Amino acid sequence: MSTALPELVVPDRLLLGSGPSPVPERVLRALAQPTIGHLDPAFGALIEDTMERLRWTMVTRNRTTLAVSGTGSAGMETMVVNFVAPGERVVCGVNGLFGERMADELTRNGAIVERVDGEWGRAIELQRLIEALDGQTAALFVVHGETSTGVCQSLDGLAEACRERDALLLVDCVTSLAGQRIEIDAAGVDVAFSGTQKCLNCPPGLAPFTASARAVERLFARSEPCRSWYFDLRAILAYWREDVEGAPPRVYHHTAPINMVYALREALGLVLEEGLEQRWARHQRAHEALREALATLGLERLAPDGEALWSLLAVRVPEGIDEAAVRRRLLLEHGIEISSGVGPLAGRVWRIGVMGAGAAVEPQRRLVQGLAELMGGDAGEAVARLEAGWR
Amino acid sequence: MSTALPELVVPDRLLLGSGPSPVPERVLRALAQPTIGHLDPAFGALIEDTMERLRWTMVTRNRTTLAVSGTGSAGMETMVVNFVAPGERVVCGVNGLFGERMADELTRNGAIVERVDGEWGRAIELQRLIEALDGQTAALFVVHGETSTGVCQSLDGLAEACRERDALLLVDCVTSLAGQRIEIDAAGVDVAFSGTQKCLNCPPGLAPFTASARAVERLFARSEPCRSWYFDLRAILAYWREDVEGAPPRVYHHTAPINMVYALREALGLVLEEGLEQRWARHQRAHEALREALATLGLERLAPDGEALWSLLAVRVPEGIDEAAVRRRLLLEHGIEISSGVGPLAGRVWRIGVMGAGAAVEPQRRLVQGLAELMGGDAGEAVARLEAGWR
Repeated sequence: MSTALPELVVPDRLLLGSGPSPVPERVLRALAQPTIGHLDPAFGALIEDTMERLRWTMVTRNRTTLAVSGTGSAGMETMVVNFVAPGERVVCGVNGLFGERMADELTRNGAIVERVDGEWGRAIELQRLIEALDGQTAALFVVHGETSTGVCQSLDGLAEACRERDALLLVDCVTSLAGQRIEIDAAGVDVAFSGTQKCLNCPPGLAPFTASARAVERLFARSEPCRSWYFDLRAILAYWREDVEGAPPRVYHHTAPINMVYALREALGLVLEEGLEQRWARHQRAHEALREALATLGLERLAPDGEALWSLLAVRVPEGIDEAAVRRRLLLEHGIEISSGVGPLAGRVWRIGVMGAGAAVEPQRRLVQGLAELMGGDAGEAVARLEAGWR
Repeated sequence: MSTALPELVVPDRLLLGSGPSPVPERVLRALAQPTIGHLDPAFGALIEDTMERLRWTMVTRNRTTLAVSGTGSAGMETMVVNFVAPGERVVCGVNGLFGERMADELTRNGAIVERVDGEWGRAIELQRLIEALDGQTAALFVVHGETSTGVCQSLDGLAEACRERDALLLVDCVTSLAGQRIEIDAAGVDVAFSGTQKCLNCPPGLAPFTASARAVERLFARSEPCRSWYFDLRAILAYWREDVEGAPPRVYHHTAPINMVYALREALGLVLEEGLEQRWARHQRAHEALREALATLGLERLAPDGEALWSLLAVRVPEGIDEAAVRRRLLLEHGIEISSGVGPLAGRVWRIGVMGAGAAVEPQRRLVQGLAELMGGDAGEAVARLEAGWR
């Protein structure tokens, strides 16, 4: 092949599924800035800046706040290989796909997994999680924002219960970060990971990550090496942090995904500009407006009041609707992506993202009109309800 | 913080170090195309395209040819966690940092590592590698292009020796792919990984990866689960490949780094347009021209004739030159990045990338002029030698 190949053109899509979410032009512009070296002092400054913006977004002072070089699940793996030793007992809340995923990850890594199962579509009762802890528990894991069900798990009292038993509190905030209130330090979370392609509106490819001083102290006290070379946080910290004892600044471990760091930093800048309280409130408002609008089409939310994740609205698909066909036509004819259900909810729900730039009236109006048309509903009424919710 | 933050601007750099390498505008434009969904049929088509372009670049028909969602070392980890079981004996060639890294990775994963050590800056004698194999050897690992020394390891006869003993041949071609002749099928390589930020001229963030049918057959015959969730190739294949037995197409595992796949596909398109033979020849020519030019400044190549990696020219820094100071001034005053030595070569060599768009007379002229000025050499003579080499 030696003829010129056509340059990439991608179809126009409105991303209102479970992620990725709509990426603002400004983030794409940052992504496409020229690549510079991972040991260039100018990149070092960008790293510092990214860490500081991430601390602000996670509401934490943890020095160990960085981005793991992989998508959200790479953050999950980094959490486990560094903070759970083989043979340790971990209580794992499972009320959706991402709790299941963590139970699988823990098992592969030799942990003794104590599952606390909950219904898909409901939060897990806090008391059940706390009662599962005992003196042998090394850690408690919960999913703050369950992307598979649109449920937000309350963390109330979990940190205190963990500290009493000297256990770590581990949290998945992939879909909640910057879309639903989560304050890492105030909630007493020891280790948390997130993803870039949800409420941060950045392309997928990095996993925001934070760990408390007490978690990091335990990590450095471990005598065995980390089972993973790529996710070895002690080595990664020697690159990301300039203050690791005995290490010269920016010790090469692996080449950071330079351009993805550009994009994440810019996406975090947009969060800072909006303000966290304002952003959380906007997500709630967008969620509620859309919920009202979709209810006019017979689409009822799966999560009960008080347990909803603002950034992901999972709605039951009424009997008689061919969910796969509607979803496919919505994508191919209207250019709008929403997501199917997974696991026990496959074929029974649609998962609709309410994430960052997608949590706005204009994209939601397009979605509501498209769905009304394909489902044979009253678009006018649905849009009116949507707009009323935004007023 | 609620005021507008300035958008990202990065300094102008010419990347002639050990990687990342210069990224063409066209690749950056592809990178910045709007994000679409990882389950969108349009993205499925891009994945197929990327796999096909990668097969062409790796000169392989392996159906299992894809990009791992992390930087080059994520490819290394994917190789080990999937193709080496704990307790298996692996012969590991070590003549530089990346051989050391693999020995470390293997040890962490419970393999019995049989090191064949070689001098940093020399290839390992093939006979020594072959003699280290025995009936118990599960795999032989070598680094085809040692980025730490600029040495290319011949693979002649290794595949035959491995097959006789039913061992897999595992190869790191991070820095050699698309810069030095490597033909995966013809060389009998079973599993290989690469990186995007070397001769492919793509930002870092993905690891091109390929595995032979016999390696994949062994993988699927394994009864124990992969120790890593994130790098579990059996699960990853259900997303990347549409032909995995029993699996519906594109089963979600983790969210692919969408925009990085755009960029890799475009970067591979540039390789296809140039042609592999032409590209390999250009890298050799660029390497030799630069070597001649730098010799006039007293900078002699570390690798002996017949063992040089075209894409990375490591040169000895003469006595009396403050290598760190020159390197720093080259970066900050001339905007040109080159790399220091590492390990036993720290402070003793410079590593100069000759990678893709960097393997051209114009960037090399800037480098030679800058170095001549900072080292007090004759820029005119050095440039004349460079240009003669390109004529």
